[in-house]
Parts: sequence; structure tokens; C-alpha cells
Amino acid sequence: MREVAGKAPPRSSALPRLRPLFHLVSRVLLGLAGFMLVPAAVDLAHGHPDWRPFAASALGLAAIAALLFRATRCDMSGGLTIRQAFLLTPLSWLAVCLCAAIPFYFSQHAGLGGSITHAVFEAVSGLTTTGATVVVGLDTAPPGILLWRALLQWLGGIGIIATALAILPALGVGGMQLFRTESSDRSEKVMPRIRQITAAIVMTYAGLTLVCAVAYMLAGMGPLNAAAHALSTISTAGFSTADASLAQWESPAIHWVAIIGMLAGALPFVLYVRLLRRDTSILRDSQVRAFLAVTLVATVLLAAWLVSAGRYGVADALRHAALSVVSIMTTTGFASTDYTGWGGAATGLFFALMFVGGCTGSTAGGIKIFRFQVMAIMLRGQFLRLLYPRGVFPRVYGGKPLPDDVVGSVVAFFTLYFACYGALTILLMAMDLDFLTSASAAVSMLSNIGPGLGPLIGPSGNFSALPEGAKWLLCGAMLLGRLELFTILILFMPRFWRG
Amino acid sequence: MREVAGKAPPRSSALPRLRPLFHLVSRVLLGLAGFMLVPAAVDLAHGHPDWRPFAASALGLAAIAALLFRATRCDMSGGLTIRQAFLLTPLSWLAVCLCAAIPFYFSQHAGLGGSITHAVFEAVSGLTTTGATVVVGLDTAPPGILLWRALLQWLGGIGIIATALAILPALGVGGMQLFRTESSDRSEKVMPRIRQITAAIVMTYAGLTLVCAVAYMLAGMGPLNAAAHALSTISTAGFSTADASLAQWESPAIHWVAIIGMLAGALPFVLYVRLLRRDTSILRDSQVRAFLAVTLVATVLLAAWLVSAGRYGVADALRHAALSVVSIMTTTGFASTDYTGWGGAATGLFFALMFVGGCTGSTAGGIKIFRFQVMAIMLRGQFLRLLYPRGVFPRVYGGKPLPDDVVGSVVAFFTLYFACYGALTILLMAMDLDFLTSASAAVSMLSNIGPGLGPLIGPSGNFSALPEGAKWLLCGAMLLGRLELFTILILFMPRFWRG
Repeated sequence: MREVAGKAPPRSSALPRLRPLFHLVSRVLLGLAGFMLVPAAVDLAHGHPDWRPFAASALGLAAIAALLFRATRCDMSGGLTIRQAFLLTPLSWLAVCLCAAIPFYFSQHAGLGGSITHAVFEAVSGLTTTGATVVVGLDTAPPGILLWRALLQWLGGIGIIATALAILPALGVGGMQLFRTESSDRSEKVMPRIRQITAAIVMTYAGLTLVCAVAYMLAGMGPLNAAAHALSTISTAGFSTADASLAQWESPAIHWVAIIGMLAGALPFVLYVRLLRRDTSILRDSQVRAFLAVTLVATVLLAAWLVSAGRYGVADALRHAALSVVSIMTTTGFASTDYTGWGGAATGLFFALMFVGGCTGSTAGGIKIFRFQVMAIMLRGQFLRLLYPRGVFPRVYGGKPLPDDVVGSVVAFFTLYFACYGALTILLMAMDLDFLTSASAAVSMLSNIGPGLGPLIGPSGNFSALPEGAKWLLCGAMLLGRLELFTILILFMPRFWRG
Repeated sequence: MREVAGKAPPRSSALPRLRPLFHLVSRVLLGLAGFMLVPAAVDLAHGHPDWRPFAASALGLAAIAALLFRATRCDMSGGLTIRQAFLLTPLSWLAVCLCAAIPFYFSQHAGLGGSITHAVFEAVSGLTTTGATVVVGLDTAPPGILLWRALLQWLGGIGIIATALAILPALGVGGMQLFRTESSDRSEKVMPRIRQITAAIVMTYAGLTLVCAVAYMLAGMGPLNAAAHALSTISTAGFSTADASLAQWESPAIHWVAIIGMLAGALPFVLYVRLLRRDTSILRDSQVRAFLAVTLVATVLLAAWLVSAGRYGVADALRHAALSVVSIMTTTGFASTDYTGWGGAATGLFFALMFVGGCTGSTAGGIKIFRFQVMAIMLRGQFLRLLYPRGVFPRVYGGKPLPDDVVGSVVAFFTLYFACYGALTILLMAMDLDFLTSASAAVSMLSNIGPGLGPLIGPSGNFSALPEGAKWLLCGAMLLGRLELFTILILFMPRFWRG
């Protein structure tokens, strides 16, 4: 700290211009303040006194954001530099997370209100679509809090799609440049501007959520539960309105709605927009096929094992297996039963699936299926080169050549992911958490899944019992994972600040 | 199986010529038979009836190997093809492991004699310099068995140095080509032929072992214990003659001899040979410096933590910390105390160190320090590229440019290592072993360390309690790790057999 302070003048002159960044952040915060009125209205309608913290937070935030908006107005026509773009992403996510925590902090709900740690953890967990909760007693929580948790996930979901569509590919983070060429090539023809794609994606996202909510209601849920679960399902986040998660509803119909909804949220939204324009490339997309194939195989294997072990009949085995596998693969984190009681083989399978994740350009987190495909292509090439040292083996992904820089970025992403994963696990163990809890919490947070494994943080556990320090560490891990590691870690390079 | 049998004629015609391979294997087995006479002689001198299985095994093996030698004599002047070289390594290691197990199987020692699983496990564990034991009651074991276990490690150690020097770099496995150019460049000048380097390395290896044995005796060990521990120390393998490992001798002198001996065994032996010729490049070698730096930092951190936690005084803390860290970093596996009782932070640190390993070209296993250096260089380049998309950043390792194909091989090695590690962990969990046992056994076997973590297989545990299937799986893992993954996994490519 001392050194930084001593070097303050040259450093601040080399800083990227922050004014346009704060201006953009102020716009996002104005929007957030508007959304706070929704839980306020619902609590008011239910006659619950928690409408006050929501309304007060909304007004206070709106006032501050408006002041910031006016104070930072500037010419934005020049676009952003690379360093500004790298700063914008963590800056805006951090600001939104902290502001979204305000109503939690001022709420009356035991264990959430009054604890900065819990309020921030819940907000970060929601916005990063992780879905790990520290709220105890969801069954008796006021509707406003339940809805705010659900809304945060939904906003975080669309936020990450926008980030993954507009910012990450341009920055070339973790192999996302693969999708830069693809989406910009096609968009020139199909739609003139990125703003139009974004609008179409938001409409699709909202439409899917509406369909999912109606489906939940038809399957037997009440309106508030259906709405909250739909917001949580399509954003593949995983907050429930019940302490027992979906196990609260022992209804096959509700479980199958959740399974299909989670799958829908984990597919690339750009492809839905194309599908609406009668472009059926979603059916031929390489990562979609791989994702569905892995999900299907894991589900069938697990179901067969559950039936052969005599735990369930065929229909129930398929449902519970599909829900658990899809829940983890899509990084949602719903549970229809405590699957950690299914024995060592199942625990091992779930642990492995936690690393996979969904498709890029969706709300799902994790390493993402396309990166595994790129790694497999890379490995195959290496084996061939061992056998034929002078051979030339073109690398192809999805019918197109796979550029070296994409392979390099993907490899760097994997390396960084496992380095962060290892460091996080050790830090959690140093806080005297057991090995299974530490290792599964690390992957669950980095991949934005939600529950871990083991009695403490497993599907029937809760994160409230962790030490305070661990909660803050996990907040950092959720943001790190959600923003694809590089976007945050690059800020720790001294060179970034030297310009 | 049916398909292979159906296609037998074309497949066998496309097979690489096996005759020269079997001829080379027969020579190695003749040598092995000769070494079996050592424990036979020692048991005879001690009047223990176990001299018979050793003598019988030696004669039987010598006879069979001699027959094989005669039967496969052929013109070897043409050298080996790539596919022959890939086959030779696993074939010879497998043959030696199985033959070395014979005297164990016929010995009288309870739990070892009569069990094929235990005999093979102990032989594989020794030859791969892993040092995980299934023998219960070492304190009462006959001298012949103790010496044979120690000798196998020593032979395995020199075997892997030879393999890493002569075969792996030529095949370009896992970035080892980095050391091909280096050693062949220099050897042209310093020594005319690889045979001469090998001879010099064997002399150095034997010399270090002798010095280590004398040091152990001076520190207070009896002759047999000193010899067995010296063979085990310089080969960084870890079999002890006591159930309590080095904790049996509560002697700082003995522990420091072990620490220095293990470090000596984990440095590249080529550099010792150069040192004898007054070439002090060992002091400037990049991987040697990184290895010693990591070891030193981890030791100091751990010792400071042990002192601050009030567990030991400064001298004892340094000794126990150094012995545990060096034991794991060099992949030896000695223990001077049960370090798994030191709490979560220490367990986490040990778990992380288990992945590191020593220097390539030594007897140490693991991922190896140079691969971490290459990965760090690769990651740095990726971060720079994010900031300066049009910049060119030359990659340098040890003062020389780092070729792209080395980076590619190293990346492939990491990927494969973690894929094998994950698969192994899940398979062990499916055998209903707990998570810490499974995860630590997987890395311990793949990195050829020895003990795992947790009560079952930790430093004061023993592998005999594992299920039979797990023992065979771990035998495979030890060989897989010892032969640097690719050498074995390439045999599973259908294309390898199609030619």
C-alpha cells in the first residue's frame, strides 16, 4: 500500500479515463433502483413491513446514481480503450453487487438483515447466478426478499449474456474470440447492429421465463413460487423459495419443467434468435450437441445405477438423475433430493460434472463445454504428432479451422481455472473446513453452481455456517468465475496500471 | 475383443517388429535375475529360510531370460522405429515389475507371500520409486525382503533416469524435447556417446548412494538399515525398513541425512556429471533454482507456522517441516512424524506440493518443476496478449527461446495428467473410498510419491487395507505416472496399431 501511495502522481496520470466508466455504471445502477420497486410493491401488497427497506433503497440508489450520471456526463462517441473495457466489467459488476445488497442488509429477516457479509454474499450469489444461499428459513421469508433474490439472478443472467456477447469476445478472453467472428459475421447479414441482437435476446430471455413460469403454475405451483422459480430456472441460478429446494414439491411435473427450463437456459441465446428467423443452426451447433450428449449419457448412466441399486423405480430414477445432472451441468444448483447420499460413485460423478458447465453465450457458468472440445482437439493433435513427428494435422472445430490463438487462450483459461481452484481449496482448508467441503465449494463457486458436496454445503445444507472469511473469499470466487477469470486477474498485473 | 480377434491377420502384419524388443527385454531380465542373488545371500547369511525363494526365482528367471535372449537374437544395428521405441518402454517396465514380484509371492512373510496382488503392488511401487507399501510388520520382516524392496527402488531410479535421458526426449513426450537439444548439444563436446554419459550417471548414482549409506551409519543406523534407506533415499522412493518410517529414529542427524539425500536424488543427474568436469551449470540451472526455491519457501512457511502454533521449538519445527516438504516435493514419501495431524492449512499445502515434483532427469516423479515454469511463461504471454493484442512477446526459458512445440507438449501433459487424476479419483470413489483418500491416492500414485492423506493411506497408514481392485488400479497409475503418461496412453490409440 505504501509503495502505491508514494507513486501516486505518475500512476494516476497513467490510469485509464474513469469518467466514461462511471457514467456507464450510473446507468446500470439507475436500472437496478427501478427493479427494487418490484419487491417493494409485492411486500406492500402482502402487507409486509419489508417494503420500506426496498422502497428506501430504491430512492436512495436512484438519487445517487442520478447525481453520478450528471456528474460524469462526457463524450462517449470514441468508444472504450482495451484497458477501459477491462475495467468496466468488474467495476460495473462490483457496483451492482454492492448496491443490490442494500435492501438485504436493511431487511428484517433473521440472519440476513444487519449482516453486511450475508447481505453481500446473497447479492453476489444471486447476480452471478450461483444460487448458494446464506438465508436460513426461506419457508417463512417475506415475499419481497424471495422475489428480490430471484430477480437478481434473472438480471445477472441477462447481464452475463450481454457481457459474453459484447465484451468478452472483443477482448479475446479464454477463447471467446471463437464466438466473436462467428456472431459478428452472421449478424452483418441477419441483423445490422449488436443493439438489435441484444434486444432480441432480452425478448427471448423474457419470453422463455414467462413460458417457464406458466408451466410451473400449470404443474401446480402458486403464482409467487412459480415466478421466483422461473426467474431462477432460466437464469440457471438455483435460488429456491423453499429450504428444501425443489424437493419441497414431490411432483414429477414440476421437476420436469425445471429440467427443461434449465436446459433452455444453458443453450446459446444467439441461436434462439436465429431459430426465430428460421435458421436451424442450433440443431447442428457443435457445443450444443456435445452439451446435450454429455448430459444425456450422464443421466442415463446415473439412472441405470440408481435402478440397479434398488433406490428408485425407472421413472423416479430418470427424473431424479436428470434433475441432478442437468442442475449441475447447467450450473443451476436445484435439488430434488439429497443426491450426496447416493454413494461414492455418484459423488465422484457429480464432482466431475461440476467442472463442465453449459454452453457459452448462455446463463450457465463453469469451464464450458466448448473449452473441453478445444482441449480434446488439442490433445488429439499432440498424440498424432508423437506418432508422426513430421505430419501436419489441421485442427477443426464445428466445421471451421481452429486458430492457434484460440487454442492458446483456452489452454490459458484451463490453467488459470485450476490454479484458482487449487488456491481457493487450500485457503478454505486453512480455515479448517474439511477437504470435501473446501474442494467442492471452490468448484461450485468458480463455476457458479450453488451447492457443494458434503453435509455442510451440500444440496440440503446452507452456506450460513461457514466462517465469515470463507464467505468473503467465496464472494470473490463467484465474481472471478462469472467474469471468466482473466477480466479480473488482469487488474493484478502491474503493467495494466502502468499503461 | 471379438473385433480384434476377427481382424487378427491384418493387425498382426501391421504390428511393429517385436523380436528386437523382446531381445532387449531379455537382457534387462538377466540383469534383474543377477540382482536377486543379493537378498538371497543376505538371507542366507542371516540364516533366514527366505533365501530359497530368492535363489529359486533368480535361477528360474535367468534360465527363461537366457532362452528368450537366444531365441530373439537379431540384427539390432538399424535402431528402433518410433512405434518400437514407444512399445519398448512399457513392455520392459511391465516385464521387470512382474518378474520382480516373484520372490515376494514365494516369500514367507505374512500378507505378502501368497498374494499376487500384494506381490505385484509392492514390486511396482518399488520399481516406480513410489514407495507405497502393502507390507504390514516391516519391523519383523526378514532382511532379504527389506533389501529386495530397497534394491527395486534403486534399480527403478536408475531405470527412469536412463529412460528420461535416452528415450523420452527422442520421442518428444510432454515437453522433454527441451532436454533433448540441451543434453545432445553439450554431449557432443563433453562426451562422445550417450553410453558414456549413462556410465558416468550410474557411477554418480552409485557414489551418492554409498555416501548416503555411510552418512546414515555415522548418524547411528545399523548397516542393513543404512544400506536400505540409502537405496531408498537417493532413488527418492520412500520404502523404509520400519513401519513408522523415519519416525522410528528420533534422531535429528538421521533426519538431516535423509533431507539432503532426497534433495540430491531429485536434481538432474546430467548436471552432476558436468559438475565433476568442473562445469558449474547446476548452480545456474533454471529448474534447479526454481525447485530449491519452492522447497525452501514451503519449508520456512511451514516451520514458522509450526512454531507459532506451539507444536515444536525452532530446530524441531525446521527439521520436521524440511523432512515433510522435501519428502513430498522430491516424491520420496518418508515421514518423520504424522504430518497429517498438523491441521487443515498444512494438509492443503501438502496436497498442493504433491502435484509439483522434482527436476526432470532425476529419480523424482510428479508433474515436474520445469513444466510449471513453462506453464507460467505461457500464462504470462497470454496476459500480455490481452493487453497488447498486436504485440509480439518472445518466450524464453533458461536463457533460450522456448519453442512452440515444447509449450504444446507441456500443455498436453498437464491436460492429460489432470484428466487421469480426475478419472482415477472418481474410480477410487466408486470403490467407496472417501474423497480425501481417493484424491490423495490418485496424485500420490501418479506422481510416484507413496503415502496419501487421511487415516487410511496417510504417512502412518498402509495400502494393504484398500480393496483388491483399487490396488490393481493404483499399480496402473504408478506405471502411468512413472512413464510420463503418453508412453502408455499412446498404446490405446487405434492408429498406433494400424501403423
